[in-house]
This record gives sequence, structure tokens and C-alpha cells, in this order.
Amino acid sequence: MTAAAEMPNPNWRPDGWDVQHTAQPTSGWLTDGDIAVVRAQLPLVYVNAVPIRVDSAGDVLEVGVLLKMAAQGLTRAIVAGRVLYHERVRDALVRHIETDLGPHALPAIPATPQPFTVAEYFPTPGITPFFDPRQHAIALCYIVPVAGDCHPRQDAVQIDWLSPEAALSQRVQEEFSDGQGALVKQAIAHLGRLV
Amino acid sequence: MTAAAEMPNPNWRPDGWDVQHTAQPTSGWLTDGDIAVVRAQLPLVYVNAVPIRVDSAGDVLEVGVLLKMAAQGLTRAIVAGRVLYHERVRDALVRHIETDLGPHALPAIPATPQPFTVAEYFPTPGITPFFDPRQHAIALCYIVPVAGDCHPRQDAVQIDWLSPEAALSQRVQEEFSDGQGALVKQAIAHLGRLV
Amino acid sequence: MTAAAEMPNPNWRPDGWDVQHTAQPTSGWLTDGDIAVVRAQLPLVYVNAVPIRVDSAGDVLEVGVLLKMAAQGLTRAIVAGRVLYHERVRDALVRHIETDLGPHALPAIPATPQPFTVAEYFPTPGITPFFDPRQHAIALCYIVPVAGDCHPRQDAVQIDWLSPEAALSQRVQEEFSDGQGALVKQAIAHLGRLV
Amino acid sequence: MTAAAEMPNPNWRPDGWDVQHTAQPTSGWLTDGDIAVVRAQLPLVYVNAVPIRVDSAGDVLEVGVLLKMAAQGLTRAIVAGRVLYHERVRDALVRHIETDLGPHALPAIPATPQPFTVAEYFPTPGITPFFDPRQHAIALCYIVPVAGDCHPRQDAVQIDWLSPEAALSQRVQEEFSDGQGALVKQAIAHLGRLV
Repeated sequence: MTAAAEMPNPNWRPDGWDVQHTAQPTSGWLTDGDIAVVRAQLPLVYVNAVPIRVDSAGDVLEVGVLLKMAAQGLTRAIVAGRVLYHERVRDALVRHIETDLGPHALPAIPATPQPFTVAEYFPTPGITPFFDPRQHAIALCYIVPVAGDCHPRQDAVQIDWLSPEAALSQRVQEEFSDGQGALVKQAIAHLGRLV
Repeated sequence: MTAAAEMPNPNWRPDGWDVQHTAQPTSGWLTDGDIAVVRAQLPLVYVNAVPIRVDSAGDVLEVGVLLKMAAQGLTRAIVAGRVLYHERVRDALVRHIETDLGPHALPAIPATPQPFTVAEYFPTPGITPFFDPRQHAIALCYIVPVAGDCHPRQDAVQIDWLSPEAALSQRVQEEFSDGQGALVKQAIAHLGRLV
Repeated sequence: MTAAAEMPNPNWRPDGWDVQHTAQPTSGWLTDGDIAVVRAQLPLVYVNAVPIRVDSAGDVLEVGVLLKMAAQGLTRAIVAGRVLYHERVRDALVRHIETDLGPHALPAIPATPQPFTVAEYFPTPGITPFFDPRQHAIALCYIVPVAGDCHPRQDAVQIDWLSPEAALSQRVQEEFSDGQGALVKQAIAHLGRLV
Repeated sequence: MTAAAEMPNPNWRPDGWDVQHTAQPTSGWLTDGDIAVVRAQLPLVYVNAVPIRVDSAGDVLEVGVLLKMAAQGLTRAIVAGRVLYHERVRDALVRHIETDLGPHALPAIPATPQPFTVAEYFPTPGITPFFDPRQHAIALCYIVPVAGDCHPRQDAVQIDWLSPEAALSQRVQEEFSDGQGALVKQAIAHLGRLV
């Protein structure tokens, strides 16, 4: 995935968390080498969100597609990011949508925890449609209607609002990387708009 | 179900519908006796909607429970009504929510056609948790967050906003009829809030 | 849809059903003209089933695609048929799979009533991806793994087992009618295999 | 969760995995202290499976409930375990079902990756219905029909097949720990059998 997969802040603790009851990370535990070690040992939990605009009957009008700056250059992407330790999935969705779309997007976070699909990003291509050279990531995927103004921030440099037909077009699909174009297709299928 | 299951207007036609190509209903086809005949011959398609209030992370705060005047007297109920000929399921949801909650409820109609469950109301009790003495109804069930003011109309005389815990309580559950209390439980389970 | 949409037998009654409590259809009520009348007045409830073969980890190997004789000639199709009065959705699935695939298909009927999507077939093209010139049909759509031998019967003249990739190919998609190719795509998307 | 949450074998590599491209864990990296460190830093990915017996129409007959030996003594539980690095979710399901139910259970692993819910186990009680004192675990939850003989192994000492009604009873619910009784309720709700 193209999202920066921030690693946990070793000093952060949830409120009321008694650090005496857990092993204390030694200072400097999360060196770059350590991050690589964890990533080579454990699947990480991600959320993926496909932002959409809907009409008053809930029918999708447009799909939001980001342009993100990634290692391989500029690429199409959806909203994606890691779930942190002691963070609820729905709070991770709020946080990553705000990171990518800005604070005024007014997202309608799904009331149900049931994702429309689970995308498994393997560091080895070809096992699933999804690929992440850095890690094994398991992404809970949600479709999120947004009602407000979206202003990309950080890695996201632009958001384009495309009709479902345009988002499915070969030209747009080819601009995605790591299989996220397939995830947009799966989202549009879930919306009943794949033809 | 307690909702009045209005039968189709025999004179209504969608725009552009060439009545010459269909058998013409004779005038007076839908007499009361005829309605009973259709109801004894075909399952009817319904939508059921459980209105909820959510916080900014999508977590359910309250469940909307109606008081409706039904044949058996005042009873708890959810939003329910028939899908008309040539009406989209999402438009039926909009229409019945407006009928029961008023025009300012600002419902977030689901973007996906996938219901959280399908409730089968049989005229014979005990086949499923759902029962409708008048007919065999198959209801597509959706959870619908509403953001605006709700003012019950027509058969619905009141809407109470209950916490998930209160909606699950035995006292409230006993005030439902026809199994709709079970549907509220299933909705709360789908929201991850059944304990 | 290409499936013969049999109308209810007016003399059939579920066990224990007290006919005295319902309006009695007059003899001859379901003339051909009457069927056309009902079809022009009410949406009918259908089940749609996409048969698949899976491996021991549940991963789809092949998608079953029927060749059916329809009004417009030979066409690709999935399993489809009407839900009868007083019939459970799961029993309708069993019945139509047996009609189309024979009695030895050993289908794994879904344990949950939640369909993967709802397909709305309108008699007017363009409202949804699905079209049925005869009627307004609302189809609950399920993916059904089958483990046994499939021998098409009645309208279905042949079943072909295709890889997901082949089922998605333009050549096969063009052999479907009424939008059922789109439904196969949506099923494969739901299986996480749309690329 | 009561399942033993085995940590990855640091020497295991998927076929074709070029260890040169990843940081090499130093020998002894996964000491007991290190495991505690990881568990206090990252949410871990789990699968939860509710085994059921179904009839030929897919309707649930019985729910499989394990007795497991856990830190707090004997407790009711469902099938649960971690997803390993470079393991597909469906392969983790196969593996943990075999671990808990034996090699002859003949599970029907779901064809779709869409779970019926996601259970978030926090080390702090009260955030969700689910609790795990050792760690933050995010569990993808599936309902898995099994057709064969089940012989509990390892931590699981017994499996009881209960009717949905019995599994929902207060007596059985009280024998679960960490919220897994609520997950069984949610599964039965998803099956349309919560009354």
C-alpha cells in the first residue's frame, strides 16, 4: 500500500494503562532495523476506505480517488493506513480519512464493523490481487460516504471525484498500484454498479 | 408487520411505460377481496429500516423505536413498508422513512443494496421469528442513521430514542409484535453492540 | 431473467394452512391474462444463485455458468427462479438449484439469510444493470458452492465450469443477457477475485 | 481470547522469500520479554470461527461450543487463533479449525473473505464487548459449517453441540469468558435465529 505505515510511538499509552504490567520497551527499540524485523514477522492490521459521494437516496454519484506520492512515484490510491495499538477500527478510519482528506470531509463512518471485504496485501505478488513489497498487511475495507470539503494532505497531493464508470476505466485502473484498482472495482461491485 | 401495506394504485405507471404492452387491469380489479387474493398467492417485498443515531465515529448512540397504531392496538415497531411496482429498493426506503419519521429526518440511505439481513414474515407463526397474520412478506432489512428531526406521522404516533441496552431490555422487547423486537436485536448484533 | 417464472398453483396450500381464514381465489383466477396483470402490478421476489466449485480452503476454483433456452434463444444464465407463497428463501434456493443442476449437485445453501447483493430487474432498461422485459423482479443473490454432479434439466441445457478469469472475459460476458453477466462479476468481486 | 496465541517462528520463511531483502532478526529476538513488547505495541490479527451443523437447506441445527483450558481455568470458547506472517486468512481458518476440532471436521471454509463481523479484543475491559488481558487482538469472525467428526485437541478438551436456543441460554453464556458468548449471540443473530 502506498500509505505511510507509521509505526507505534513507544511512549504512547492509552489512558489508565498501567505500564508496570507490561514489558517495558527499552529505549530505541523501534529503530529502523527493528521496524523491518516486525514487518518480517507479523501481519499488520490496516483500514482501507473508498470515499464516495452519494445522492439523497444513497446512490453513488462519484468515487474519490487520491493521487499519492509513493516510493515508485505518483500513483492512484485510496485512503489507507495502519490501526494502532489500543485504537478502535472506527477511530483508525476517522484518523486516516482526516489525514488524507482533511478535517472538513464529514465522513459517514460505517455503523457496522462488518467490512465489505478484507484485502490481504502480501509481499509476494500473485497470492491475492493485492501486493505490498514492504510487509504483509491485512486491510479491513469500508466504503465511506463523505459530505464535506476534501483537501488532501501529507502524502496525498490531490483527490479526483470520478463517476463509477470512469473509476472502472482502463486508463484510471492502470494508474493504481499494488492492486488498489481492483479494490475500487470490488467496492463499485458492492454498490451494485459494476456492469 | 404493523405497517399499512398499501396495495399498488392500478392507474399509476412509470414514465414511458407503454400500457399497451401489458394486460390492462380491469377497473375495480383491486377490490378488497382481490387484495386478499393476491396476499394469499404471492410473497410481497418489503423494506424494514432500523433508524439509529450515531456519533462522529459511526458508533451507535440510540436506536429509534416507533409506537404504531396497529390492528391489535398500540405496539412498538420499526420503519416498514412495501416496495411498489417499478420502485427501487432505495426509493422505497426513502419513502417509508419519510412516511414514518417525517420529511426532516435526513436519513443516510445505505449506499450498498446488501441488507444486513432478510426477514421472512409468514402468516403461520413459528417458521421464522417473524409473523404477519395478513400475508407472506419478505423484508430487506437495513440500518439507517438519521441526522435530522423526526416527527412521526400517519400510523406512527411516537418515536422513542433508546440506548442499545434499553432497546434490548425485556420490557421494551415485550412491547414489539410480530417479531420486530428480534429484528432490533439482530440489528444491534450487526452493529457489534449485542452483549 | 431467463428462468421460467412459474406462477403459484392456486390449489397448493402449506401443511396445516386453514384455507377458511383466507380469501378463496375463484377458480380460474390465474388465467394468462391474470398473470400479466399481477406482473404489471407487483414486484416479484426471486432468488439468484451463482454456483461455484471451491477447494478445501474455500477458495473459488470454478464458476458454474448455464446455457439456457430463453425467448430470445440460447443464452448464458445463472440459477434463478421465483420464491413461492409460504416458501422460505432457503427452500426456494434448494428447489431452483435442483431444477437447474439436477438432484445430485449437493449444494451448500448459505447458513445466513444475508445475500451478497440484491439485484433489481426492471422492465425498463437502464435503471439498474438488470433488465427483465416481463416484470419487475427483486432477486436475493447468493453464491452457492456445489460439491456433486450437476446435470442441467428443463430450460438449462448445459452447465460450463469456468475459471473466474474466463467467466469475466468479454467473450463470455457478451453471451449473458438481462445483466446476469454483471451479477457474475459482482459475485467474483465478493469472492475477492476480481482483478 | 483463550486460544494460545503462538508467536511466529523466526526461522520460518515462505517459499521463494529472499531473506537478504529483510532485516535479519538477531538470534534470540523472540524471548518472552520480546513477545510482551510486541503485544504491547501492535494489534495482532486473529480469526474467530463459530462452528455449526446445518441441514440440507443450510438452516443451523447446532452450534459447536468448545471447553478450553485457559489461564483462568476451564471456560467455554469458540475456535480462535492468530494469522501468521505470510498466511492467508482462509489458511489460518483451516489451521485453527484443525487444531481445535481435529483433522476430520470437514469444515466448509467461507468462499468470501467478508467476515460476518470484526471483534476487537482490547486489554482494557469495557471498550467493546471483547476483552483480552494479554493483548490487543482484532479478530475476523466467520461462521463455519462442519460436516465431519470433531475431536478436540490441544487446549480444547471437549466440544458440545448445542441448539441455538441452548447456546443463547444464560447458563451457557455465563460459562464463556472474554466476551465470546456475545460473539456466539452475534453469530446466531447473523443466522437469523436470534429471537
